[in-house]
Amino acid sequence: MKLYDLAGSPNTRRVRIFLAEKGLEIPIVAVDMAKGENRTPEFLAKNSLGKLPVLELDDGACIAESVAICRYIEELHPEPPLFGRDMLERAKVEMWNRRMELEILVPAMQAFAHSHEMWRGSLRQLPDWAGACREQITARYTWLDHELADRTFIATADYTVADITAQCAVLLAKGACGIRVAADQPNLAAWWERVSARPTARA
Amino acid sequence: MKLYDLAGSPNTRRVRIFLAEKGLEIPIVAVDMAKGENRTPEFLAKNSLGKLPVLELDDGACIAESVAICRYIEELHPEPPLFGRDMLERAKVEMWNRRMELEILVPAMQAFAHSHEMWRGSLRQLPDWAGACREQITARYTWLDHELADRTFIATADYTVADITAQCAVLLAKGACGIRVAADQPNLAAWWERVSARPTARA
Repeated sequence: MKLYDLAGSPNTRRVRIFLAEKGLEIPIVAVDMAKGENRTPEFLAKNSLGKLPVLELDDGACIAESVAICRYIEELHPEPPLFGRDMLERAKVEMWNRRMELEILVPAMQAFAHSHEMWRGSLRQLPDWAGACREQITARYTWLDHELADRTFIATADYTVADITAQCAVLLAKGACGIRVAADQPNLAAWWERVSARPTARA
Repeated sequence: MKLYDLAGSPNTRRVRIFLAEKGLEIPIVAVDMAKGENRTPEFLAKNSLGKLPVLELDDGACIAESVAICRYIEELHPEPPLFGRDMLERAKVEMWNRRMELEILVPAMQAFAHSHEMWRGSLRQLPDWAGACREQITARYTWLDHELADRTFIATADYTVADITAQCAVLLAKGACGIRVAADQPNLAAWWERVSARPTARA
C-alpha cells in the first residue's frame, strides 16, 4: 500500500493526520503538481481527476478522495475508532464531517483559489466569490463556537475524523485566507488549542 | 422515526430515493422553508443550521445531512446494500459519492442559487460564479461520460448511493440550470435513462 501525497494540501493532510492517529506509517510518494506530475497518463490512470491524495493498494487498485481513503483505513485498522463507536455515533460523525467539509473547508478552498496569487493563471479568479466565501466562514465560526459550548470535540466525546476535517479547514482559512478564530469565540479557540496540541497535528 | 422533508430539494430527494430503494416508508413531516418553518426555535433545536433533511429518532435524537441519514438507514436495514458489499466496494462508493457531490451536485446548487430568481433577495447573486459552476458541470459530464464507458452504474456493478447523488445532481442541473446531457455523451445518457426508469426515481 502506498499514498500519493501533495505537501500543503488540506485533503492530503487529512489522510496524514488520520494515519498518524492510527499509529500507521505507509510509504509516501510525493507528487509535484507544479511540475504537472498529477497530469501524466500514469497518474491519471490512478485518478482520472488528477487530484490528490490517492491510496494505491498492493494489487494496483486505487482509491481517491481523502475520506474514502480514511474509511478504508478505518476498516483495516479499527482502533482507535475515528468514525464513531456505534450506529448513532457513526451517523453523528458523518453529519459533522460533512458540515465541516461543506460549510467550512470547501468555502476556504474556494476563497483561497479565488484570491491567492498562487492560483492566478490556473483559473479565472472571482474576488466577489472569494469575499462571499470568507463571509460564510466567519458566520460558521460563530455558529461552531456556540455548538462547542458543551463539548470537547466536534462530533462525539472522542476525537474523530470530523475534528481532522475541521482542523484542516481552520488551518487553511488561517494560512491561506487570513481568517482567524475571533477573540469572542472562546469555545472554538479552546477546541483549536486542544487539537493543535495533539502529537499528530503536524503530520 | 420521522423524516423532516422539503419538496424539490436535491438533498431531501436523495434520502427519499434511498428509503424507496430499501422498500421503507417512514412518516414524513413537510417543512415549508418559504414560510420560515426551518428557522423556528423548535426546528433549530433539531438542526441548528436550519437545513433539511433531518431524521428524528424515537428518543428525539436528530440526524441532519442526507448522507448521514442514509448511512444510519443502511446500518438499520442492510439490504439491498447501497454503500457497497465489501471493504473495497465501500471505499469506491464513498469515493464516487464524494465525486458526484463535490464535482457536480455542489456546483449545480451554486449555479442555481447564483442565477435563479427564486434566490434573488436571499443572497447576493454572482452571475460570474454561476457561469463558472456551469462550465465545471459541463466539463465533468464529459469526464463522467468517459468513465461510464465500461460500466452500468457509477461506483460498482450495483446501483448505489453514488448513483442517487449523481441522479439528483443531474436532475437539478437540468431543471434549475438548463444543463442537459449532450448528444455526444452516450454513456452518460444511457446511465441517466437507466436510473430514471427505476420505480424509485420519483420518490
